[in-house]
Amino acid sequence: MSAPTRKLKTEGDFRARLDAAAGDIDDLLDALLSEQRQSGEIQRPMRLLEAMRYATLGGGKRLRPFLVVESAALFGVARSRALLAGAALECVHCYSLVHDDLPAMDNDDLRRGQPSAHKAFDEATAILAGDALLTFAFDLMARDGVHSDPAVRLALVTGLARASGLGGMAGGQMLDLAAEGRFDKSRKQPGKLAESEIATLQAMKTGALIEFACRAGAILGEADAAARSALERYGRAVGHAFQIADDLLDLEGETAVMGKAAGKDSAAGKATLVATLGRDAAAARLTALIDEAEVALAPLSQDTSVLRAAARFVAGRRT
Amino acid sequence: MSAPTRKLKTEGDFRARLDAAAGDIDDLLDALLSEQRQSGEIQRPMRLLEAMRYATLGGGKRLRPFLVVESAALFGVARSRALLAGAALECVHCYSLVHDDLPAMDNDDLRRGQPSAHKAFDEATAILAGDALLTFAFDLMARDGVHSDPAVRLALVTGLARASGLGGMAGGQMLDLAAEGRFDKSRKQPGKLAESEIATLQAMKTGALIEFACRAGAILGEADAAARSALERYGRAVGHAFQIADDLLDLEGETAVMGKAAGKDSAAGKATLVATLGRDAAAARLTALIDEAEVALAPLSQDTSVLRAAARFVAGRRT
Repeated sequence: MSAPTRKLKTEGDFRARLDAAAGDIDDLLDALLSEQRQSGEIQRPMRLLEAMRYATLGGGKRLRPFLVVESAALFGVARSRALLAGAALECVHCYSLVHDDLPAMDNDDLRRGQPSAHKAFDEATAILAGDALLTFAFDLMARDGVHSDPAVRLALVTGLARASGLGGMAGGQMLDLAAEGRFDKSRKQPGKLAESEIATLQAMKTGALIEFACRAGAILGEADAAARSALERYGRAVGHAFQIADDLLDLEGETAVMGKAAGKDSAAGKATLVATLGRDAAAARLTALIDEAEVALAPLSQDTSVLRAAARFVAGRRT
Repeated sequence: MSAPTRKLKTEGDFRARLDAAAGDIDDLLDALLSEQRQSGEIQRPMRLLEAMRYATLGGGKRLRPFLVVESAALFGVARSRALLAGAALECVHCYSLVHDDLPAMDNDDLRRGQPSAHKAFDEATAILAGDALLTFAFDLMARDGVHSDPAVRLALVTGLARASGLGGMAGGQMLDLAAEGRFDKSRKQPGKLAESEIATLQAMKTGALIEFACRAGAILGEADAAARSALERYGRAVGHAFQIADDLLDLEGETAVMGKAAGKDSAAGKATLVATLGRDAAAARLTALIDEAEVALAPLSQDTSVLRAAARFVAGRRT
């Protein structure tokens, strides 16, 4: 199961690695969220389990687990351990998509080209499936299989909670909804936040979990402070790049490619750096962030070619 | 801060103890969810923090934290540690109330006599506040202040996740919604579940977290297997009694006393043992469950008078 980090020769090499991790995560989530696995352990309200499976097994690049796996690989962490921690992050990511798609939130009927969870099931089931996935993430992160040392698992539990809650993803979604002007009817120009406000919003909403994915690898590998800090800096740059690339894609993309309605975010008055800076300046910022990600990795003595390719891949989502 | 378990002389003694724990939990949650505390640590989307405070600081008997504190006190656990673990459980309980009240779920406009969170704020904010409270619960449970041994905190994280997720509270709410017949339009008589099905549903929806509150005290106290098992059995009986008492209250209570619309659950076709067994048989079951709770405690050598009074108090909610 171990796939040691090695020098990448081609872009195809990177894609193969990314796809392999995605396949492993798909299999792992499928097994973890199967009826068989849990029979005897707990009661199984089948409708809820089906909705949780629908929300997690519908594809996706599994970028966050990939970043956990590749960051952890720098420190020789067993792949199976990093995958289990990565599955926990992916459950948080998938719960956030289910809740963000709800009518009261972003009201998206499509997700990855398929009906979003509340369309495939119903709103109540989607709310509960999100809740149960978030809860399951902490169940997974606390398992023996993640690391033999309880203190390490506990550090991961804490990191996951902080990246996901009030000061992270949930808080960022709150700021994002506020930026639409929906809580302040007197606001004339929703979406017109200052650049620094948008950066904060996005760092919380999508950046925090991506940064934590990279930090989780360092925690799993019991890396020293310098290495942990390098991966945090790398993760912040990649998280930021991810969001700008996503916003550019929303502006330029085709619905068929994206699996959701193109232009929807800008139409909704979502606060984006692309809207504030303009397309060209945003693209330049993206290039600078890839450089920043590479610079962040420089202090590490390990071969970081996979992580460098990951930063380029994330930024390249706009093409 | 320590309040050692002692023989109770009167019912008033018990209420004073219950109220003292509730006051401590109110103060603790207020401090944990204050802006000051978190400034410098994290960004603070104020609207979300306000909604989290609204959902947690609006009163309530704090039964779950009380059970943690009193179970833990049997083993000499410091009160401050049990309170912090209890606050984590209370965050889970409060999140579940916010989400259950949503229009797509039970559609309740009132909670403890006040507008429920989605009425006081809005649906999106209520969904996010629930999400952030659930996340915060795991943040709290993982903190040093809960126990010095990471393995103990990890056992509590796991227990909390299992009590709250697919196999516990969230799963029970799913079964409860299904029992209304809302996912099966051909179903003629919603609410007409078999007695064992209702027992399972209620054991998951409300029983699991109450049982875990009692078990958490034993985990914190590093109790031996026999003591842990005694508290689990006690917790199961109390959780079951709680639900029957609640259903009797729904049938008999006045809206002003309950802080929510009386008769609403039965009108909604909620599956209850009271509806299935009838009022008298349900009341008899309640009495049997108090006995069961007392019998469960018998193997313990400690003074369990507070826990015995707690069982009677829970059952007495119908009067």
